[in-house]
Amino acid sequence: MLKIYEYLDKHNEEHLQQLIEFLKFPSISSKSEHNNDVRNCANWLVEHIRSIGGENVRLYETGGHPVVYADFLHSDNAPTILVYGHYDVQPVEPFELWNNNPFEPIVKDNKIFARGASDDKGQLFIHIKAFESILKVTGSLPINIKFLFEGEEEAGSNHLDDFIKNNTELLRCDSVVISDTEWFDFGLPSICYALRGIAFVEVKVKGPNRDLHSGSYGGTVDNPAEVLANIISRLKDKYGRITIPRFYDGVLELTQEEKDEFARLPFNEKKYCESLGIRQTFGEIGFSTLERVWARPTLEVNGIYGGYTGEGAKTIIPAEASAKISMRLVPKQNAEEITKLFVDYIREIAPPTVALEVKALHGGNPVITPIDTIWMQKAKVALKDAFGKEPVFIREGGSIPICETFQNVLGASPVLIGFGLPTDNTHSPNENFSLENFFGGIKAIANYYMLLKE
Amino acid sequence: MLKIYEYLDKHNEEHLQQLIEFLKFPSISSKSEHNNDVRNCANWLVEHIRSIGGENVRLYETGGHPVVYADFLHSDNAPTILVYGHYDVQPVEPFELWNNNPFEPIVKDNKIFARGASDDKGQLFIHIKAFESILKVTGSLPINIKFLFEGEEEAGSNHLDDFIKNNTELLRCDSVVISDTEWFDFGLPSICYALRGIAFVEVKVKGPNRDLHSGSYGGTVDNPAEVLANIISRLKDKYGRITIPRFYDGVLELTQEEKDEFARLPFNEKKYCESLGIRQTFGEIGFSTLERVWARPTLEVNGIYGGYTGEGAKTIIPAEASAKISMRLVPKQNAEEITKLFVDYIREIAPPTVALEVKALHGGNPVITPIDTIWMQKAKVALKDAFGKEPVFIREGGSIPICETFQNVLGASPVLIGFGLPTDNTHSPNENFSLENFFGGIKAIANYYMLLKE
Repeated sequence: MLKIYEYLDKHNEEHLQQLIEFLKFPSISSKSEHNNDVRNCANWLVEHIRSIGGENVRLYETGGHPVVYADFLHSDNAPTILVYGHYDVQPVEPFELWNNNPFEPIVKDNKIFARGASDDKGQLFIHIKAFESILKVTGSLPINIKFLFEGEEEAGSNHLDDFIKNNTELLRCDSVVISDTEWFDFGLPSICYALRGIAFVEVKVKGPNRDLHSGSYGGTVDNPAEVLANIISRLKDKYGRITIPRFYDGVLELTQEEKDEFARLPFNEKKYCESLGIRQTFGEIGFSTLERVWARPTLEVNGIYGGYTGEGAKTIIPAEASAKISMRLVPKQNAEEITKLFVDYIREIAPPTVALEVKALHGGNPVITPIDTIWMQKAKVALKDAFGKEPVFIREGGSIPICETFQNVLGASPVLIGFGLPTDNTHSPNENFSLENFFGGIKAIANYYMLLKE
Repeated sequence: MLKIYEYLDKHNEEHLQQLIEFLKFPSISSKSEHNNDVRNCANWLVEHIRSIGGENVRLYETGGHPVVYADFLHSDNAPTILVYGHYDVQPVEPFELWNNNPFEPIVKDNKIFARGASDDKGQLFIHIKAFESILKVTGSLPINIKFLFEGEEEAGSNHLDDFIKNNTELLRCDSVVISDTEWFDFGLPSICYALRGIAFVEVKVKGPNRDLHSGSYGGTVDNPAEVLANIISRLKDKYGRITIPRFYDGVLELTQEEKDEFARLPFNEKKYCESLGIRQTFGEIGFSTLERVWARPTLEVNGIYGGYTGEGAKTIIPAEASAKISMRLVPKQNAEEITKLFVDYIREIAPPTVALEVKALHGGNPVITPIDTIWMQKAKVALKDAFGKEPVFIREGGSIPICETFQNVLGASPVLIGFGLPTDNTHSPNENFSLENFFGGIKAIANYYMLLKE
C-alpha cells in the first residue's frame, strides 16, 4: 500500500487537473438543452477510463442519458465489486448566488468549488483514480471490478432500473460500492449502513359539486378542507406516534449498540435547532433526534391545498381539498403494505359526508446492510488507515431507491462509503468538495480494493 | 289602490321598455374599462327619476362610482322612507354560457334575461315605478321618500359607508327599505328579517426557516401543515359544534314560533343534497338545515395551503402553512369579540414548536329587524294584497354589510322586501327576473308606500 500511497501523493496535482476537466462539462440531466453536454461528459469518461487501462469500456444507450460501463476482470478467485456512481449533476439556479461559474472550477481553502464537485463527480472519480493507482503500481488488480456510472440520477434514474434488470449477467457481482453519501462531520469518516424507504400518497377529499357561498351554505355542508384537517390530525398522536393501525408492526428496533453509537456522535441539538430556526425539535416520544430521523418510520404532510388561497377574502366552502403525504420507512417495513395500511385507515376514519380519492404516487423499500460483513468491516479498516481516524457507522434518513434494486436484482447489499461533508452545499450554490477528502478518499478506496482480495 | 293597480296594468309594456333601456348599460363596477358605462347609467337614472317627478335628483361624487340621490318630501306628518338599491352589476364572464347578449335584454317564458335584471336594477326599478304610479294617480305621495342608489355594491361598496356617515342629515329617515333579496321559492312572497355577520381571519403557522428535506428531517421537526390541521380539527367537535370557548355566549336563540315557521317552509332536504352533489348534510347537532344556515353561527375553512402543491411528489416539510377561516355570526354576536375569542383560543392550543401569525381580514355584525314593527307588518299586508298569497318571514345566511351601517348610523333597521327568485341566476350567466314578480312587485311596493301613511 505504501507504494500506492506514494504514487498517489506524487500525482495529486495531475488527478486534480483531471477532475477539473471532468467538472467542466455542464452535464445537467434534467434539462434537455444540456443533452449534448451530458453525452460529451459520458464520452470523456469513457475515453478517460480506457486511457488508464479499463476494459470493455462503452456507453450503453437507455431511453434517456447513456450509462457508462467498464470492467477489469482478471482475478478468478477474488470477489467482484460493482462500483456505482453518477456523472450527471443538478441544475445551478440560482446562478447569481455562486461565487464562481459552476462549470469553471476553482480551488480555494483546500476545497474545489463546482457543480458536481461532491455530488457525485468528485466521489465517482475517487474510484477511477484508486483503480488507476493500483494498476499503475502493481500491474494488475487484486479483485474484479465493474464500473456502472449513470447519467440520470439527478433526474429520477428513470431508466436505470430497467437497465439493471436487463443486464443482470453483465452486472453480476459480490458487492456494490457507492460513494455518494456524507460524513457525519468534518474529520469523521462515516460508513452508511441503512437508508429509509418511502411511501408517497396523495389524498383528495371531495365534497359538494362546486365551491359554495359560505354565507348561504356555511353550517349545513361538511367542509372538505376541515375533513382533510381532521384526517391529518388523526394520523399522529400528541406524542408524535403514528396512529395508523399496525404501522409499526415488524419495525426493526435499534440494538443497544446502535443507540450507544448514535449517542456518541458529535450531535448538538441546540445548534441543530438554531440552524433550522426552530425553538425545539419534535418527534416520536422515547427516541433521540438521530434515532428518529435514521431509524424510525415517520409521516409528513408535504403539501396541502384547497379552496381560496389568493390574496384577501373569498368566503367559500371549497368543493375539494388535497394533501400530499409521505411516509419514511425503516427496515423491515414494506412500502406497498404500509400504503395499504394508510389507505385502509383513512377510508375508515373519513366521514360519510365526503368522497375520498387516494393515489399512491410512488414507493421504495428501506435498505439495511449488516455491519458485520467483510465488505463493511474492511471498509472500516481502509478508512481508518487512510484518514487516521476510527470511522463511525451511521444511517441516513433519506432514500436512494436504486439501492433496493441492487439488493433485489443483483442480491448485493450496497456498501455506502461516502466522502462528502455536510458543508458541501450539494444541490445548492457554491457546491464544493474537500480536497483532503478527495485525496484521502482515493487512498481509502485503493486500500479497500487491496483489502478485499484477502 | 285600485286606481293605482289599473294605472300599472295599463303601463306594463311601457315600464318593461324602460327597464330594458336601464338594463342596456353595462354598468360593471369592478372593471375600470366600464367606468363610463357606470356613469352613463347613473345619469340615465337621474334623468329618469327627474322626468317622473323626483326632486333634488343628483349625482353625489364618491371616491369611486357616483351615488344617485333623489327625494320627495311633502308629507310633514308622515314617515320618511329611505330606499336603497344599486345600479351597478356583476361581470358577465363566462360570456359564452349566455343565451343572449347580457346587455341586449330579451323576454322569454315571462322572464327578462339580462345582467342586472334581478340583481339589482329590476328590483330597484320597482321602487321608481311604484313612486311614479302613486304620484301620477294621486298627484302626491302619502309619505316622504328618499332614494339612495349605489354604483359600487358589486365591487365591495367601498365608499358608501363614508358617504352615509358624511350625509346623515340628507339621509335621515324612519325606515330603510331594500329590495335585493330572494323569495324562498317561486310563488312564495318572502320578507327577510335577519342577516348573519362575518368575521374573517387568516392564520399562518410558521415552522423551520426553509422547506426541509423530509428524508433528512422527517420525524424531528414539527410540521406546520400538520400543526395547522390539528388546530383546525380542534375548532369543531364531532357534533358540528364550534369549540372556541364562549363562542356561543349571547347568541340569540330562535323562538318556537320562528322554528315552527321555518319548518313550514317548502324545504326538501333530499333535493337540496342532490343539487349540491352531497350524500347528506352536516352541521351543528340539534338544528335543522334552515336553522343552521339562517340562525346559527358557523365556522368555515375557506382556503388552506402550504408546502408543495404541484404535480407529483416533492418530499418536504413545509416552512409554513396557512388557512383562511371565516365565521358567520348571528344576533347578538359581535365580530370584534368573536375574532378575539378565536385568536385567543388558537394561540392557546398552538404548540410551542411553531410560531403563529393571525390576521383579522374583515368583519361585519349580524342584523335583525323585529318582525312586529309596523314596517314589517305592513310589508306583509302589502305583499299579500299584491300577490294574493300569505308572505313568509325568512332569514338569510349571508351578510349585507351596509345594513349594519344603516342600523348604526341612521338608526333604522332595514326592511328587506326582495322580489328575486332562487332561479334568477344572479352573478351567473343567463341572469333573469320574473315579469310576474316585477309587475307584482311594483304593485306591492306602491301598496306598501300607501299603507305606511296611516
